[in-house]
Amino acid sequence: MKYGRTFNFSAGPAMMPEPVLEEIRDEMMNYRGSGMCVMEMSHRSKVFQQIADEAQADLRKLMNIPDNYKVLFIQGGGTLQFAMVAMNLMKNGKACYVETGAWSKKAIAEAKKYGEVQVVASSADKNFSYIPDCSDLDIPEDADYVYICENETINGTTWNKLPNTKGHILVSDQSSMFLSRPCNVADYGLIWAGVQKNVGPAGMAVVIIREDLIRDDLDPKTPIYMKYKTHADNDSMYNTPNCWAIYCCGKVFKYLLSIGGLEEMEKRNIAKAQVIYDFLDSSKLFKGAVVPQDRSLMNIPFVTGDKELDAAVVAASKEAGFDNLKGHKSVGGLRASVYNAMPIEGAQALVDFLTKFEAEHK
Amino acid sequence: MKYGRTFNFSAGPAMMPEPVLEEIRDEMMNYRGSGMCVMEMSHRSKVFQQIADEAQADLRKLMNIPDNYKVLFIQGGGTLQFAMVAMNLMKNGKACYVETGAWSKKAIAEAKKYGEVQVVASSADKNFSYIPDCSDLDIPEDADYVYICENETINGTTWNKLPNTKGHILVSDQSSMFLSRPCNVADYGLIWAGVQKNVGPAGMAVVIIREDLIRDDLDPKTPIYMKYKTHADNDSMYNTPNCWAIYCCGKVFKYLLSIGGLEEMEKRNIAKAQVIYDFLDSSKLFKGAVVPQDRSLMNIPFVTGDKELDAAVVAASKEAGFDNLKGHKSVGGLRASVYNAMPIEGAQALVDFLTKFEAEHK
Repeated sequence: MKYGRTFNFSAGPAMMPEPVLEEIRDEMMNYRGSGMCVMEMSHRSKVFQQIADEAQADLRKLMNIPDNYKVLFIQGGGTLQFAMVAMNLMKNGKACYVETGAWSKKAIAEAKKYGEVQVVASSADKNFSYIPDCSDLDIPEDADYVYICENETINGTTWNKLPNTKGHILVSDQSSMFLSRPCNVADYGLIWAGVQKNVGPAGMAVVIIREDLIRDDLDPKTPIYMKYKTHADNDSMYNTPNCWAIYCCGKVFKYLLSIGGLEEMEKRNIAKAQVIYDFLDSSKLFKGAVVPQDRSLMNIPFVTGDKELDAAVVAASKEAGFDNLKGHKSVGGLRASVYNAMPIEGAQALVDFLTKFEAEHK
Repeated sequence: MKYGRTFNFSAGPAMMPEPVLEEIRDEMMNYRGSGMCVMEMSHRSKVFQQIADEAQADLRKLMNIPDNYKVLFIQGGGTLQFAMVAMNLMKNGKACYVETGAWSKKAIAEAKKYGEVQVVASSADKNFSYIPDCSDLDIPEDADYVYICENETINGTTWNKLPNTKGHILVSDQSSMFLSRPCNVADYGLIWAGVQKNVGPAGMAVVIIREDLIRDDLDPKTPIYMKYKTHADNDSMYNTPNCWAIYCCGKVFKYLLSIGGLEEMEKRNIAKAQVIYDFLDSSKLFKGAVVPQDRSLMNIPFVTGDKELDAAVVAASKEAGFDNLKGHKSVGGLRASVYNAMPIEGAQALVDFLTKFEAEHK
């Protein structure tokens, strides 16, 4: 790779497109004749407002976001969203959650502070290695929403068919698959995604919310920052936003449009993941951790079945110049995260390495 | 200036030291042989952990932070801190606030959601143009803390003598004067500062909190992100922090140490502000908005006394290549923010411009 860059399989923050980084570097000392770096700009200035407006317009184009949805840029990551979703959308004080792994569990734990949480389906019985059948869930009539984590970063599952919410609002955490494939926004009431996995630098979540779900009649103790209405009414500039993240993500949105949008991105992601899954399915040493039909294109956990051997793979991978292949501490094993910005050459190089390792450890 | 850079008088985000920006640019494609940009690094990686550890260690050195204080890096800016301070420190449900301008008013409004707020002093009577005498405040015995905004960005006042809290905990919003002068951390229970004014990119607040004030027995509805304990127990990495801001701020901390620390920075800031205040005091057209003894070294609001003429100054300043001289919309007039990274040449150039404007508008 150029600049001596490495194939970085981190689960996030993770790789960004090289042309985007080059542009950012070139604009560092003086952004397009403004006399300033973007980090130095007043968020109330015309030059920054244009950056923010373009970022939002490009994201709307990329995802075909309908006009009755607001796009918000909010700090605090997923951890704040776990609380914000419940604080803002629990009108009747009841919500349904599907438990598919580490991140939906965190969302459930936080939501319980603000109302009754019903876990309507779970894949805990098989170590979260699949997505449960959600075609006929038992959803109470007065449930405010149904919540899913659409791609479980740690467990490596993804939803290929959305749950039947029986007319209830669908809320989705798309963090680790955001912009990895086309998405029909109208299927959701709210989509949120921490941008640090598949878009840009950590420190911001994108929230896409249907306008009629933005309420003002919340618990009076709700911090002003945690009302979606605060951000919606002020176009994400009630207070100083994470301007740098907006700038960098905006460049990634433009980059994705330039290569052909989410349809093209999905094709590339399928091809890339296929390289690795094909290897895993044919390997006698390595095994994927997820049932084939629910496998994530983004996060690919796998194991040898032997903890010491797993550790040996990680050690050898570092020597070979790969980074961040160790599985999450909560599940162990190995994990290759191959987000949008990972080139197919990275997936191929990983397979070459694993093939060689397997040959040496027969 | 190099690179065609402008003298940027923005109230924040604002100028950063040029050598810091150059380093960031040079490390963009491959940070010190890691093969990655800092934006692409896992926050759990050794290479990023070292960046975060150094940033904290350098800040501790710069401010002589005692060992019994935690340093936290939290997203959400001042707006989240207004709520967090009250949610975490109101043990008896009562706190005293000093009202000195726009930002203390925002803090007061948010704190009222969580308990009884007593405004123990105010300078509202004279349009927040001074700091009230706080040598003998009427502070209830059971007040949990006394809160001040140590530099009012919009109004241009600064505290040169801290209030007599009569043994109560002092909480200070130092956002717009953070690291502008030496500070005895032991005088405070908690200091917080949004970094986007005097340090680095927007999207992070630094919180310096005495360990015994970190509590776990909060309202059960407190979002996990809003407990100082969550951040303190996890060294600011409970969730993915704003890694980029930690990296950039860390470089600014090192830069400040390299020039001689906060004592040297204060000398430079006094010299710089003096250039502008001397002009204002001798001008027949322009007038500073704040009483001399409480003037900020960072934010210098001034007026001609004529709104149209104020607007003419702003228009002419843009033509002359200065940026962001317009006063905040809530107070009007003009404002020059001259944070740490503004060189004295910027202050001198501004005075030259204003002198010329005055000569042309006699």
